[in-house]
Amino acid sequence: MAEELILLDFWPSMFGIRVRIALAEKGLKYEYRDEDLSNKSPLLLQMNPVHKKIPVLVHNGKSVCESTIIVEYIDEVWHDKSPLLPSDPYQRSQARFWVDFIDKKLYDAGRRTWRTTGEEQETAKKEIIEILKVLEEQLGDKPFFGGESLGIVDVSLIGYSCWFYAYETLGNFSIGAECPKIIGWAERCSNKESFSKTLPDSKKVFGFVQELRKKSGLE
Amino acid sequence: MAEELILLDFWPSMFGIRVRIALAEKGLKYEYRDEDLSNKSPLLLQMNPVHKKIPVLVHNGKSVCESTIIVEYIDEVWHDKSPLLPSDPYQRSQARFWVDFIDKKLYDAGRRTWRTTGEEQETAKKEIIEILKVLEEQLGDKPFFGGESLGIVDVSLIGYSCWFYAYETLGNFSIGAECPKIIGWAERCSNKESFSKTLPDSKKVFGFVQELRKKSGLE
Repeated sequence: MAEELILLDFWPSMFGIRVRIALAEKGLKYEYRDEDLSNKSPLLLQMNPVHKKIPVLVHNGKSVCESTIIVEYIDEVWHDKSPLLPSDPYQRSQARFWVDFIDKKLYDAGRRTWRTTGEEQETAKKEIIEILKVLEEQLGDKPFFGGESLGIVDVSLIGYSCWFYAYETLGNFSIGAECPKIIGWAERCSNKESFSKTLPDSKKVFGFVQELRKKSGLE
Repeated sequence: MAEELILLDFWPSMFGIRVRIALAEKGLKYEYRDEDLSNKSPLLLQMNPVHKKIPVLVHNGKSVCESTIIVEYIDEVWHDKSPLLPSDPYQRSQARFWVDFIDKKLYDAGRRTWRTTGEEQETAKKEIIEILKVLEEQLGDKPFFGGESLGIVDVSLIGYSCWFYAYETLGNFSIGAECPKIIGWAERCSNKESFSKTLPDSKKVFGFVQELRKKSGLE
């Protein structure tokens, strides 16, 4: 049976980017459907009735929801090419720990760099640098979090790198000055074909964030 | 080599209970160390330097942190007995979805049933019933979320059942009246030896919550 893969997504989503990168790494063809989040498609509501959120991967009519769960699903089903999780259980647990760390910390702190002002914004900026410094320490001198080749931690973090320009510009601070290794890592990722063809342009993300700020009365 | 397993935990923790149940299901012997969370042990700080939280499983000197990651690790290392995750990738993704749903929704709503008052408390009560109704629908007429035998969703949810009595008494509402299937499921779990020997007494958890309320000036 031919595999039918549909991805319900929204282009600037760091969560959707994870899935797009995982699919690209595995060399899988899929139909991409960009959702209007203010008017969600009947398919999205049907396929993710609990959270009603993107990304959703529809594989032969059955849905998988939540970005990290989708990435693990892709890695398990198409396990022959470009493994994203290590095969050793202990190494797997450590990779999952860092993905979970990114999920628990980075989205919220990042959002506050452009959604807030004054003291709240200063706190968010400090937090994001602290979080990235912890990740930098974890990266060490390896080219990727996965070691010589990329793994699930790289896939999970890279979506944020397209937002760095918006965080920095709207928060008036420099991630690169504080965390040069993270910037070096993001550049190495961007040089890979699966990433360069998938990642949205930072300036386009910035424009999107500015629109959101206008709608919230922040600009 | 003899396996050395140490669990750093805190007895009423619904997250710690997950790990205790998983270890019991696998028939593994381990050293249990109850932490004083107001004066954490040097081992806890050393083994979980990022979050400094229980539970932590120390396996032959190496730490695994975050309850769901620990449960998956246990299932992967000791895969011959009592599998907790299905072997089929799609079924695995669905089990992970429900564990993630419990993690994202239940702790926070449960906490607000006893930490808040007035309108906020009423909202929390409504929320917890809504969450449990979604889970009830997912359980359907199966004895366990895992089907005929228990799985990772059962292991992830059961720790909350010891807190139901505290939620109900301090929130003045009945979970059983609204979600009888969840109560039936919790009773079925409690009848299993691995659970009955592991789960803390609901009245003892209630006493613990009352102490917390006193410390916060709520009683």
